[in-house]
Amino acid sequence: MKPEAEGEPADDAHLRETCIESAQVFDGNFLKLRRDLVRLPDGGTASREFIQHPGAVMIVPLLDDGRLLLERQFRYPMNRVMLEFPAGKLDPGEAPLRCAQRELLEETGYHADQWAHAGVLHNAIAYSDEGIEIFFARGLRAGAQALDEGEFIELLPLSLDLLQAKAFSGELTDAKTLIGLLWLQRWLAGDWPLQWQTAG
Amino acid sequence: MKPEAEGEPADDAHLRETCIESAQVFDGNFLKLRRDLVRLPDGGTASREFIQHPGAVMIVPLLDDGRLLLERQFRYPMNRVMLEFPAGKLDPGEAPLRCAQRELLEETGYHADQWAHAGVLHNAIAYSDEGIEIFFARGLRAGAQALDEGEFIELLPLSLDLLQAKAFSGELTDAKTLIGLLWLQRWLAGDWPLQWQTAG
Repeated sequence: MKPEAEGEPADDAHLRETCIESAQVFDGNFLKLRRDLVRLPDGGTASREFIQHPGAVMIVPLLDDGRLLLERQFRYPMNRVMLEFPAGKLDPGEAPLRCAQRELLEETGYHADQWAHAGVLHNAIAYSDEGIEIFFARGLRAGAQALDEGEFIELLPLSLDLLQAKAFSGELTDAKTLIGLLWLQRWLAGDWPLQWQTAG
Repeated sequence: MKPEAEGEPADDAHLRETCIESAQVFDGNFLKLRRDLVRLPDGGTASREFIQHPGAVMIVPLLDDGRLLLERQFRYPMNRVMLEFPAGKLDPGEAPLRCAQRELLEETGYHADQWAHAGVLHNAIAYSDEGIEIFFARGLRAGAQALDEGEFIELLPLSLDLLQAKAFSGELTDAKTLIGLLWLQRWLAGDWPLQWQTAG
């Protein structure tokens, strides 16, 4: 045990693992898995299995009436309907903001006049390289949903208070959505600055 | 598009997917994957691939001097050292609190006199059934780390302000740790009640 003073050691060689061999071990319709043989910091070896993910975005849509636009979607691994902000995976070569605009439009039918990048989160660092870029969107104009085949999503506008109540009660448990809510509260309190840009 | 009034529809039949066939398609050293054929709400079918995860815990350790006990660990899928609260997977049949006590001891060497369950989060609902139970721990007493083979973890006590600065700067991006930090701030502000229990 070596507790450090505040601040961080510059050299991570004592923690770093390096790739010896890398192989794709599963190539599914949806998921791709790699298993790598790695050199450990002490010279030993270990195997590391992880999902190769294209990356994702999530949008926190701020309606003009002050409510937030949530989605209810059945998530098969959880065997239940989950309450979430709109989100989706990057297409190959797609910029995150472009993906956020596309996903918001497809899943909810809404365009947004203004966008701000709030940050990035990594949601399953033990077994996936997924990063989720978080955007806030305002100046929303309603249109028609254009869901992917096999996608069933119900829209649910909620006040901030009601969404917070669902976090307190344990009904809202999706990690990306919890972080979006908490960052929104920080922004509203004036301590999470955002750079808004106009982007139709 | 069918925006709902605040509150939720009671019947989720229009969203629910049901299992037709289920098969394990990958059984790795670390990851297990299933591919299920499912019936969609409109009567069609689709395949769903997801990781079967045993479940996990995370501990927010509150040191007597007011700092928080963080870990720095190389996360191979991210190809970098990540800043995290202590966490680990449930052993078969293990209760979450027992797992939290074990992981805190193994990874940091610390015992805690008091524990509180803060909530649960689901971190990859599109492709994993993982749930992470979040515990706060206080009354910490230092001992000796007992890391698993191939596990290299550096301990880093940080003040709340410095950890918050790392969230603002984008250095702290681990989803479970961000949520732990934000819930801790809510608890300190008096609006996230916790039931503390004494449990050596």
